[in-house]
Amino acid sequence: MGGGATLGQSVDEIDTPALVIDLDAMERNIASMAKFVHSRGVALRPHAKSHKCSAIAQRQLHAGAAGVCVQKLSEAEALAATGVRDIYISNEVVDSRKLARFAALAGQVKLAIAVDCLLGIERLAAALQLTGHAVDVFVEIDVGQGRCGVPPAAAGALAHQVVAHGMRFAGLQAYHGKAQHLRNCNEREAAIRHSVGLVRAAQASITATGLRCPLVTGGGTGSFVFEAASGVYGELQPGSYVFMDRDYSANEFANRGPRFEHALFVKSQVMSRGAAHAVIDAGHKSHAIDSGMPMVWQRDLDYFNGGDEHGILRVAAAGAPRTLPSLGETVWLVPGHCDPTVNLHDHYVAVRGGLEDGRVESIWAIQARGCSS
Amino acid sequence: MGGGATLGQSVDEIDTPALVIDLDAMERNIASMAKFVHSRGVALRPHAKSHKCSAIAQRQLHAGAAGVCVQKLSEAEALAATGVRDIYISNEVVDSRKLARFAALAGQVKLAIAVDCLLGIERLAAALQLTGHAVDVFVEIDVGQGRCGVPPAAAGALAHQVVAHGMRFAGLQAYHGKAQHLRNCNEREAAIRHSVGLVRAAQASITATGLRCPLVTGGGTGSFVFEAASGVYGELQPGSYVFMDRDYSANEFANRGPRFEHALFVKSQVMSRGAAHAVIDAGHKSHAIDSGMPMVWQRDLDYFNGGDEHGILRVAAAGAPRTLPSLGETVWLVPGHCDPTVNLHDHYVAVRGGLEDGRVESIWAIQARGCSS
Repeated sequence: MGGGATLGQSVDEIDTPALVIDLDAMERNIASMAKFVHSRGVALRPHAKSHKCSAIAQRQLHAGAAGVCVQKLSEAEALAATGVRDIYISNEVVDSRKLARFAALAGQVKLAIAVDCLLGIERLAAALQLTGHAVDVFVEIDVGQGRCGVPPAAAGALAHQVVAHGMRFAGLQAYHGKAQHLRNCNEREAAIRHSVGLVRAAQASITATGLRCPLVTGGGTGSFVFEAASGVYGELQPGSYVFMDRDYSANEFANRGPRFEHALFVKSQVMSRGAAHAVIDAGHKSHAIDSGMPMVWQRDLDYFNGGDEHGILRVAAAGAPRTLPSLGETVWLVPGHCDPTVNLHDHYVAVRGGLEDGRVESIWAIQARGCSS
Repeated sequence: MGGGATLGQSVDEIDTPALVIDLDAMERNIASMAKFVHSRGVALRPHAKSHKCSAIAQRQLHAGAAGVCVQKLSEAEALAATGVRDIYISNEVVDSRKLARFAALAGQVKLAIAVDCLLGIERLAAALQLTGHAVDVFVEIDVGQGRCGVPPAAAGALAHQVVAHGMRFAGLQAYHGKAQHLRNCNEREAAIRHSVGLVRAAQASITATGLRCPLVTGGGTGSFVFEAASGVYGELQPGSYVFMDRDYSANEFANRGPRFEHALFVKSQVMSRGAAHAVIDAGHKSHAIDSGMPMVWQRDLDYFNGGDEHGILRVAAAGAPRTLPSLGETVWLVPGHCDPTVNLHDHYVAVRGGLEDGRVESIWAIQARGCSS
C-alpha cells in the first residue's frame, strides 16, 4: 500500500492523483541506453536526481551502469541507506557540517564529489582527514551553463590543490545544462562541440601542472549522443531518459542515438465539468510546471494551469474537435519536467501491461524525495 | 531533530536549505487577522492548504477561528489524525472510493464539503448513508475563477438536490481565486463587487426553491477585506496571511485592512561563486516558482532560476551596487508562493527572536505535505 495503490490492483483502481510508471516502457528505456553506451565504449553513470529511487537505480546498475550521480548530500545519504554502493555528488558542497556527514558516509559506500574553489577543497580535505576515508574528487568547469564550475584555464590549479591536500583527483565534471533543451539537434551538437573545446583546454591546463586527467564526466538526455562521440568524455550522466518527460520529448532527435518512450505519468480524474472545460484533480502539487504544462496523454486536449490542486482541460485548438472527458473519467498526464515532479510524490505506482489494462506490479518508495540539503 | 535543525539551536546553525518560520511575525499575523474578523463580525475559517500543519491550525483555532478549510480529502485525513476537529473541504470530490473515506472520517471530526454537480451529490449521499454520519454541504458557485462551481442561477436546483438527498445544505462556497493577485486595490474591490452580485443572484435562486442560505463562505488574503464588507459573506477563508509570500506582498493594499509581515523564509547558503554571480543551494526543489522567483531578503540581489537545486544571485539592476555574498554566507529567501513551497518540505523550523539572533523554538511536522488525493 502506498501512492494510493495496492499490489495486483488494476490500473483503473489506482487512486488519483498518482505517480505511475509504465514499467515496460521504462525497462526499454534503460535497455536502450545501456546498449548505446556499450556500443560507444563509454561508461554510464545515470543521474538519480531524476528518479530519486533505489529500486530504479538498482535496475540501471544491473544493466551495467558504473554507479549513480546525485546533486545533494542528503540524496546520497538516502540512496546509500537503501543499498546503492557507488554515488557521485556531481555538485559542490562547502559547508563544513555537511562535509563531515559526507566524510562519514565515505566509510560506507564509494563516494565522489565535485569542487570548484579552494575553500571547498580545504574543508573537504579537513573533513576526510578526520574520518580517514578516501573519495574521488572531480574539478567542475563551466562549459556553458553559467552556474557552478571554474573557467577551463583554472582547472589545473584546482586539480593541483586537490592533490596537494592529499586527495585523489578523479577528473573533470563538465555538464552543459543549458544545451539540453535546445530544440534543434544541430544546435545541441554545436553547443556540445563548444563544451568539448573547453574540456580540452581544461585538460591542457591540468597536463601543464604535471597531472593527468583520468576521466571527463557529464552529459544529459538532450546531449549525451554528442558527448559520447566527442572522444574526451569517458562517462555520461543522463537521468531523464529513464522517464522521458514532455520537455525532452519536444526536442528534435533526428535519429541521432536511441529514442526513449514516455514512462512516467500522473493519473488524474475529472472532478468538475463546465460547458467548455473539464477540471481534473491534479494541479502543480502533483506535477512540476517549471518547464511548462504537462501534456494530456493521447487526447486532443490542452492543459491549463488551475493552481496547486486543479488542472483545466479544453479541447485543443489545433486538434480534432473531441468531447471533453466526463465527470470521474481518468486522464493521464505526461509531466513537463520529471525530476521535480517525482519530488512531489512519496511513491511510484509501477504498472505492468500498459496504462489501459495493466496491473500494479510494484510500489516503490521515493527515498530521496525532498532531499535538498 | 527535523528540517536540518535541533531545538534550542541558533539560527546560524540550521542546515540549508531549510523552511524557517519567524514565529514572532507569524503570531502577529494570526493576531491581526483575528482582530480584524472580530471587528467586522464575520467568522474566520483559515485555509490550511497554505500551512498544511496542525500546530499552526491549532494556533489559528486558539485565536478564534471556526475551523479550517482544506482542498483535498487526504489533507483532511492528515489534519484530523493530528487533532484538528472541524474541517471543510472547500472543493469537490466525485470519486466514490474517496467519498467512502470521507464518510468514514465524518464519524471522527466535524466535516463539510462542496458540491457542484448532481453526480457528486448522489455519490456523497450514498456514501454517508452507509456510515450514518452527517456533514455540511456547500454548493459552489463560480464567481469569476472559471474553474469549479455552477452559475448562480443553478445554485437553487443543486441546493434542493442536497436536501432531497437527505443532507444538510449549509450555504454557498464562493471564492474568486483570480481576484487575489490583481495588484491594484480598486481592481480587487471591483472584482469582489462583481462576485457579490453573483452571490446575491445565487441566494435568490435558493430562496426561490423555498430554502434559505445559511452561510456564504469564501475570500482570500488578497480580497478578504472586501468580502468582509459585502454584507453577504459570513465566513472568510484566507490562508496565506499567516506567512505573506512575495506574490501577495506585491499587491497594493492601500491601508484597507490589516497588513501582514513576511513570516516564511527559506534559509540557503552560497555554495559557488563566479565573478559576477553567487550560487546558492536552494533551487525550485526548495521553494515553488509557479508565482515567480523568490525575493532575496533585505539585500539588493536578484534571484535567477538555477534549476531544481541552485539559485543564481546577481546584484539587482535597480539597487545600489553591493558586494555579492561570499562562499558559505547565509542568504534568506521569501518564497514566491507559500502553499506549494510548504509542500516541498517535511518540517518547519520555527524560530523565536528573529532571523539574525533567534533560536529554534519548535520543529513542526508538515502533516499534510504531499496530500493531493
